[in-house]
Amino acid sequence: MDTWRTAIVDAGPDHIRVRGHDVLDLMRQATFTDHIFLLHHQRLPSPGERRLLDAILVGVADHGAGAPSCAAARLAASGNRQSLSAAIAAGVLTIGDEHGGAGSGCMALIAAGLTEARNDSASFEAVAGRLVDAAKATKARLPGFGHRVHATIDPRVAVLFGLAKDAGLEGDGIRFARALEAAVRDRIKPLPLNIDGALAAILVDLGFPAMVGKLLFIVARVAGISAEVLEEYTREKPMRIKIPVAYDGVPPRDG
Amino acid sequence: MDTWRTAIVDAGPDHIRVRGHDVLDLMRQATFTDHIFLLHHQRLPSPGERRLLDAILVGVADHGAGAPSCAAARLAASGNRQSLSAAIAAGVLTIGDEHGGAGSGCMALIAAGLTEARNDSASFEAVAGRLVDAAKATKARLPGFGHRVHATIDPRVAVLFGLAKDAGLEGDGIRFARALEAAVRDRIKPLPLNIDGALAAILVDLGFPAMVGKLLFIVARVAGISAEVLEEYTREKPMRIKIPVAYDGVPPRDG
Amino acid sequence: MDTWRTAIVDAGPDHIRVRGHDVLDLMRQATFTDHIFLLHHQRLPSPGERRLLDAILVGVADHGAGAPSCAAARLAASGNRQSLSAAIAAGVLTIGDEHGGAGSGCMALIAAGLTEARNDSASFEAVAGRLVDAAKATKARLPGFGHRVHATIDPRVAVLFGLAKDAGLEGDGIRFARALEAAVRDRIKPLPLNIDGALAAILVDLGFPAMVGKLLFIVARVAGISAEVLEEYTREKPMRIKIPVAYDGVPPRDG
Amino acid sequence: MDTWRTAIVDAGPDHIRVRGHDVLDLMRQATFTDHIFLLHHQRLPSPGERRLLDAILVGVADHGAGAPSCAAARLAASGNRQSLSAAIAAGVLTIGDEHGGAGSGCMALIAAGLTEARNDSASFEAVAGRLVDAAKATKARLPGFGHRVHATIDPRVAVLFGLAKDAGLEGDGIRFARALEAAVRDRIKPLPLNIDGALAAILVDLGFPAMVGKLLFIVARVAGISAEVLEEYTREKPMRIKIPVAYDGVPPRDG
Repeated sequence: MDTWRTAIVDAGPDHIRVRGHDVLDLMRQATFTDHIFLLHHQRLPSPGERRLLDAILVGVADHGAGAPSCAAARLAASGNRQSLSAAIAAGVLTIGDEHGGAGSGCMALIAAGLTEARNDSASFEAVAGRLVDAAKATKARLPGFGHRVHATIDPRVAVLFGLAKDAGLEGDGIRFARALEAAVRDRIKPLPLNIDGALAAILVDLGFPAMVGKLLFIVARVAGISAEVLEEYTREKPMRIKIPVAYDGVPPRDG
Repeated sequence: MDTWRTAIVDAGPDHIRVRGHDVLDLMRQATFTDHIFLLHHQRLPSPGERRLLDAILVGVADHGAGAPSCAAARLAASGNRQSLSAAIAAGVLTIGDEHGGAGSGCMALIAAGLTEARNDSASFEAVAGRLVDAAKATKARLPGFGHRVHATIDPRVAVLFGLAKDAGLEGDGIRFARALEAAVRDRIKPLPLNIDGALAAILVDLGFPAMVGKLLFIVARVAGISAEVLEEYTREKPMRIKIPVAYDGVPPRDG
Repeated sequence: MDTWRTAIVDAGPDHIRVRGHDVLDLMRQATFTDHIFLLHHQRLPSPGERRLLDAILVGVADHGAGAPSCAAARLAASGNRQSLSAAIAAGVLTIGDEHGGAGSGCMALIAAGLTEARNDSASFEAVAGRLVDAAKATKARLPGFGHRVHATIDPRVAVLFGLAKDAGLEGDGIRFARALEAAVRDRIKPLPLNIDGALAAILVDLGFPAMVGKLLFIVARVAGISAEVLEEYTREKPMRIKIPVAYDGVPPRDG
Repeated sequence: MDTWRTAIVDAGPDHIRVRGHDVLDLMRQATFTDHIFLLHHQRLPSPGERRLLDAILVGVADHGAGAPSCAAARLAASGNRQSLSAAIAAGVLTIGDEHGGAGSGCMALIAAGLTEARNDSASFEAVAGRLVDAAKATKARLPGFGHRVHATIDPRVAVLFGLAKDAGLEGDGIRFARALEAAVRDRIKPLPLNIDGALAAILVDLGFPAMVGKLLFIVARVAGISAEVLEEYTREKPMRIKIPVAYDGVPPRDG
């Protein structure tokens, strides 16, 4: 096989270097969040950037055993108690555009808006209005807006934006997200930014591309899935989970 | 279906609480490592405990694209570019007793030794000697000892044990691991503690059961797998990976 | 990387050969069941062997959407609609000793019994009695016996054993399974062979080792999972699945 | 949780019915291929349809240990020997648009062409020409055409089309695929139909939608992955697989 190339880790005979940093130095001084930032961004974060990424990872790590990611992991732990990694992987596999993907979708929306504003020398308000009109015309959902429970505002949004302000890291991502929120309110109905929209705005301001939004969701959620699997192994019997099913297909074909 | 019970997250209508802590407070003040500790240990860590867990998570996050976990993730990203979670899950699935499992295995060994020492009121030296004799008799491998590259000592071990000393967190786990290392040297040959053995000793001293050793390896490694998958998506073409295979089975059956 | 060796497929420039057979010949003449047999057994089956393997694969392909394998696949299809393979893999991951593993477990039991009978020149009745006594003493479950629904006899068992008789393929596997059934009845209580026990007996008689029992279960069940995933994609909206969870952990910490 | 609805399996207290058929009857009379057809098509196949589906499943079950699906499964079996299902799932996860997806892609192309021909009352030649021109203009690949090894014609194509002819099952799918092949030859260069294109044409003629093309690829390939995993478990040591990696990232940052 051809040798694979990589720019991430240099595992020499005496040292492992990650993005050029000696792993021994990182072990002594970096937090896991620093390391996650380094792996995905090729540099270490500032203290303010670290605080924001910590808040995001903490905020999405676990929302309960009923989320598809945690429920599928528990189902796998229930039937296959030979492999912790099998249970965690089953949970990860439920994460896609529909579950855990709104942040990444909103990052793409914000990034597209910022590019359009720059290319057209247009105001954020004008571009946000155009994007909302387009979504309205095609009845497309705007990822990152609205919430099933919090009719007015998700309290986690205020926390995230407060941290961004305290760190002096409010940037065009947050400003454009706010412009989108206003355009949605004026053109459709009040659908406040939810946590996916808030973390999307911040991750854009931290310099991450949209794809990384989904990757960081997975990194964070694996911490929660892991704890759910631990509980299933240690507190529940195998095969305890019953799901009721009603058959509505073709009737018996003969006898 | 029956309602599932859980002791981890309480996702009420206005707040999410994790192990009784308001997630808003955690987002403001906790690091991701604090949160991982909380999810798996039911309480937040002290600053010294946090530093040790950070060092462990950083130390195992990524050892290069050729590790099975990263290689399988890249293979999946190469053939199936529709789902980031599919690639990460493929990497996770390679983690078992043979890859990423030595820490967990060594934790079980240390925990068994500590129980035996307590029950028999025996010295660590005596118990460690017995365990090594038993492994020698059955030709069982002692997980956490020896290294392919570092003939004498893995430099990451010194870093981890130095951090434990600085934090005043050297406990019976580390002491028993040292007793095992001495017994191995005296009874078999010098096979110094490797990073898996060192993190096992520390995780025992932090109060984690052996199963958590493997879970934390997975949590840490997913950060590395994620970055490897990002690189494969952004820098490499699909299906670029060729693996050479030589057939050594039955010859053609007729013509 | 070193070249990998394989005895299964020889993919030359003009022909693909599987276990020495030209794939063109196999495509023309073999059934998929023949091919599965060939891949796992290194030879093609007789017509009677084929009929038995067909019956087994058909019998375990799908037992309903509520089985963990199908439920986890549907959860993944619900949250991650970007990858059919991710949904199928999530279903596969629930298969272990507890779900889909009884056949393999019973094959190991029968194989151990047959070896013991041969080595000790003992009757099947004597060896079966010893194995059941041992299981009773350690309160171990006997895989392949008993059923939640069919109090007396699972009708699928009669079908499988009838097919084996018709094909002239009743062998020591079936005879030993019957001896175990009698020993269970006499020493514990009437727990008739279930479908896992019946297919285990037949697979032993077909010459398969225990590990193949679990592999064939997976091969068969993937056909069912696949149809369940197809239905979830085409008939259900994403994220339709709700699982009720009750929190019973630590109360709010306040602060 | 709400009850899940399903139209596939009715698992009553005494019988399991699949698509209205008693599973006992199916076990006695149906082949596994019949059952796969029934699960995905809601009816049993004719003998000719069965022969074609058998040929397709046999033809794609395994192309060697170096294919991403088999290589990833072997990597997982190498690092995680606790779970056969984990290894098989890792293999499945590599299957996407790029690996195993050309059949499904070609089915969508043929289906779109047939719809266009019907709606516009246009000849297959005209519609195929338009589709090829469109692909040429956008430099899109035409899935199902061309082959790395077989410069002129993949011999498996002749086998599949010969079986379709013998069974009297040549339909518009095959006719349109031939029209596409001629249009490719005339407008781009000779790129004969490959096995993915041939099975796509046949699966369209058997009445399957494009999504089923990928599902059937997975069902077939799992048989091959399963045999590869069996070989890795029984013949190779854990962690035997080494992949060479060259680091081309940032140089050491300091010392």
